[in-house]
Amino acid sequence: VRCEVIAIGSELLLGQNVDTNSAWIGEQLALAGIDSHYHTHVGDNLARIVASLKIALDRNEAVIVCGGLGPTHDDITREAIAEVMGVPLVRDDSLVARIRERFIARGREMPLNNLRQAEVPAGASIIPQMPGTAPGLVCPLHDKVIYAVPGVPSEMRKMVAGTVIPDLQKRAGNAAVIASRTLRTWGQSESGLCEMLAARIRELDGLGNPTLAFLASGIEGIKVRVTAKAQDAATAARLLDDEDRRLRATLGDLVFGVDAQTMESAVIEQLRARALTLGVVETITGGLLSARLTTVPGVEQVLRGSLVLSEGRSQPASITPDLPAEAAQAAQVLALHACRTFGSDVGLAATIEPAPAQAPEVLAAPVFLGLAINGTAESRAVYLPGSHAQRRQFTVINLLNFLRLNLGRRLCG
Amino acid sequence: VRCEVIAIGSELLLGQNVDTNSAWIGEQLALAGIDSHYHTHVGDNLARIVASLKIALDRNEAVIVCGGLGPTHDDITREAIAEVMGVPLVRDDSLVARIRERFIARGREMPLNNLRQAEVPAGASIIPQMPGTAPGLVCPLHDKVIYAVPGVPSEMRKMVAGTVIPDLQKRAGNAAVIASRTLRTWGQSESGLCEMLAARIRELDGLGNPTLAFLASGIEGIKVRVTAKAQDAATAARLLDDEDRRLRATLGDLVFGVDAQTMESAVIEQLRARALTLGVVETITGGLLSARLTTVPGVEQVLRGSLVLSEGRSQPASITPDLPAEAAQAAQVLALHACRTFGSDVGLAATIEPAPAQAPEVLAAPVFLGLAINGTAESRAVYLPGSHAQRRQFTVINLLNFLRLNLGRRLCG
Repeated sequence: VRCEVIAIGSELLLGQNVDTNSAWIGEQLALAGIDSHYHTHVGDNLARIVASLKIALDRNEAVIVCGGLGPTHDDITREAIAEVMGVPLVRDDSLVARIRERFIARGREMPLNNLRQAEVPAGASIIPQMPGTAPGLVCPLHDKVIYAVPGVPSEMRKMVAGTVIPDLQKRAGNAAVIASRTLRTWGQSESGLCEMLAARIRELDGLGNPTLAFLASGIEGIKVRVTAKAQDAATAARLLDDEDRRLRATLGDLVFGVDAQTMESAVIEQLRARALTLGVVETITGGLLSARLTTVPGVEQVLRGSLVLSEGRSQPASITPDLPAEAAQAAQVLALHACRTFGSDVGLAATIEPAPAQAPEVLAAPVFLGLAINGTAESRAVYLPGSHAQRRQFTVINLLNFLRLNLGRRLCG
Repeated sequence: VRCEVIAIGSELLLGQNVDTNSAWIGEQLALAGIDSHYHTHVGDNLARIVASLKIALDRNEAVIVCGGLGPTHDDITREAIAEVMGVPLVRDDSLVARIRERFIARGREMPLNNLRQAEVPAGASIIPQMPGTAPGLVCPLHDKVIYAVPGVPSEMRKMVAGTVIPDLQKRAGNAAVIASRTLRTWGQSESGLCEMLAARIRELDGLGNPTLAFLASGIEGIKVRVTAKAQDAATAARLLDDEDRRLRATLGDLVFGVDAQTMESAVIEQLRARALTLGVVETITGGLLSARLTTVPGVEQVLRGSLVLSEGRSQPASITPDLPAEAAQAAQVLALHACRTFGSDVGLAATIEPAPAQAPEVLAAPVFLGLAINGTAESRAVYLPGSHAQRRQFTVINLLNFLRLNLGRRLCG
């Protein structure tokens, strides 16, 4: 099955919004083993949406249309799909009731506009997940299919993960139930992971079920997705659990999380479970580490605070301790300083050798990660590629991973 | 002239990279008054790139192809364009020399692979801007045109701004020189700006030159782009200068910068020009303000440091001062605390009313911006829309703007 993604919205063409939905859907399709050869952006224009749908149906068996399902007059995805299907829009009374309920729950009247959202191309079925007021649609066209999902990322993701991907997998194969789980890893390249898992990959190639897929996701690490087919959900879940155990036995602490779990949420969770508090001193990361940690719900129970200092180390003496000349030691001093400043159990910091020693064209200087736990500090050098902005991002994830591994080893080992 | 954008690269389809190039190009086209009705992503596959180019040429007069101009075997944009043009690739010896120079300048031999980058479809001309080793191309097809630019954003932007947009504008109109300038504004809605400038907009509609375009860019503010046509560059520049003066006379301090200047670079520049240092206390912004400030080159001369505290205000007394119950006053105390902590002239902070007073479904609580300059503090309430993540982002830009306006008024007024 080949599946094209069409993102609808003039704001995408005008550059007012960057389209992150297509990338997310593309990743989900790749992880599920479904080919996706094209993404298209098109504005809120009926003729052009219809033209895009026809081109997409011509070169694919399935199309995911994202956006244009709202209640206003420029939300015309429903109309475009009905035109391509050659059917009228019909009002679905059960949808009217569900949408009205949403408004009642918030103590509001349903505006008449929202009735538009209950109009469905004749023959389409409704996606059961419906986090907002926009219903998702499954629209069959002979042996092909158009899925329509809202442009709001959180709503789109629930529908794609809950209905679209499983439906596509059913179309691709024939299993009654298809389930999957993604192990999140950090610390090994894609080819390195493949090498570690080579024996099991060969075995699974023979068995055909479950299957493994790998996906490199930059500062989010490399994802290993397990997909299992079975006659019932319980069997599929058991296959996933078995494979999960096998993979972890080989990959060990390269695995930091599962599915939507991020490195920062994994680290905060680890600290919370051990009743440890965290303090941070940021230099080269300039606030990015704090910004990433503070997106985790409940972080305030763990993170006592962060101090962001410039790389020039020109702060008043009351703020910065005397730093040793060697960056490896300076990273440790800064990590201990984080603990002292914020009264925390754990301190995290990173620093680099002072700049003058570095010619611009010379290989990028290493970054020194510093970690203090209950008064004991250690540091580690990492060599990071890319631009200054990329090095900042990679320093953040490496710092978090350094803490994660040390917590695991010190307190469990 | 209608222009489609095609971004090339399997990593876009797989979601390993989010495509920000299409949005940036889309914005430039919109600001230049050129219609763009479709964006397409396609992988590194010759047949599919050719198919995408044919569809794009069928429905547009111009196409910008972005990516696939590197030296490796999967960089096949040149081949695809030559196939669509029905011409062979020919090696351009002047390009070989230029690419070789790039390597010599870095003290390296040119790998043979890079000769691929000097292969050009017969009849194409080379874009003069060439920041890297990938040449950009202008490929005529009868009365239509394909522009090929690299996927590296910094290289792509120089070529699109320097050659592609002016060339498209020449195709759309007939002027010898087309020049433009973008005034960056914050603090007024798009319709509000239009109202303020209504008389001048009417006048310009009559004159036809220069023209104005407006573009809302979220937390980057609203852009006002002036485009002038003239017989020579000096006349175009004079038209831009005149219009710039007129616009600023009406818009006043809503204008914070020009072209690529950001709010954070404008603020850092203002502080540096006045030899003022800055200290920051972040609560609800969780490090985002620091992360944005520290992207500005030379920021370490201005920013003494930032303290990131959780919204829960549970820090040790040595770190946080006693805060008054009222958030408007707390914002001032925190701004003064930033100055004291970092020994800076200026302190910046934001806070909200403690959470328990707020029911979840109630209108979002105001954010209180706090600013201290040379020991005197003030605060201001702002009501910000959206999710928690959006409120954090809007708080950052509002804080920076609050500082910018106060610096202007206190020290110039």
